[in-house]
Amino acid sequence: MMTQYDDTNIFAKILRGEIPSTKIFEADKLVAIMDVMPQSKGHCLVIPKTPSRNLLDADDAVLQDVIVATARLARAAKQAFEADGVSVMQFNEAAGGQSVFHLHVHVIPRFEGVELRPHGSSGMADPAVLAEQAEQIRRHLA
Amino acid sequence: MMTQYDDTNIFAKILRGEIPSTKIFEADKLVAIMDVMPQSKGHCLVIPKTPSRNLLDADDAVLQDVIVATARLARAAKQAFEADGVSVMQFNEAAGGQSVFHLHVHVIPRFEGVELRPHGSSGMADPAVLAEQAEQIRRHLA
Repeated sequence: MMTQYDDTNIFAKILRGEIPSTKIFEADKLVAIMDVMPQSKGHCLVIPKTPSRNLLDADDAVLQDVIVATARLARAAKQAFEADGVSVMQFNEAAGGQSVFHLHVHVIPRFEGVELRPHGSSGMADPAVLAEQAEQIRRHLA
Repeated sequence: MMTQYDDTNIFAKILRGEIPSTKIFEADKLVAIMDVMPQSKGHCLVIPKTPSRNLLDADDAVLQDVIVATARLARAAKQAFEADGVSVMQFNEAAGGQSVFHLHVHVIPRFEGVELRPHGSSGMADPAVLAEQAEQIRRHLA
């Protein structure tokens, strides 16, 4: 049985403008923001505006918008930080690694010889650093 | 600079029927197969037939087909194995975790309290077990 969507989650609050975020870009149906607890330099997120808990209950059209934005963001972030690769991750339910229950995709630039930091282990990133990184990514958006 | 697609990779060989795989389903534009080095019970893959190295050089239409199939497979695998969650992962370039250089998405059923096995650590799975798991997933495909 699927747990219902709860609109008090942090991404719903960000989408409503109730709490701040470092936005990279906004489209009709989604936003891309910097992750505040980055697992690597340039770790960012694609978040659709349409509410769903995760991929398991999302509409196909939402997923299609999200994956196109994910690819666009991955290409830009790879260039912006001269990354050697990109890990794309999408977690469903707590056992699957999900901690915020609004569908989102992680875009994580990767660098040779650098392990991913465990999620949350680095604490909250400096907002000024995130703002600069968002600007670097925007410069490389196709 | 993007490395070119090399059609001697193992998924290209599977798509050409040159080496066997445990197929879950096949559609016009993609296949879903069991991962032969599963990181959890029921670990499976979505592989588009259109060649691309990874998400970074893939066409949007290919990615859109892949994500819809990924969601369908994730729902079925979660039900088939009564999993508590699903981790969806897509790796780009070696630094990003990629080991086969043909676009693919990992669909990994997850279970409370069970860590992911490192990729390859469990060796090759028993083909008979994979065939039974593929059948279990097929029974739950919407």
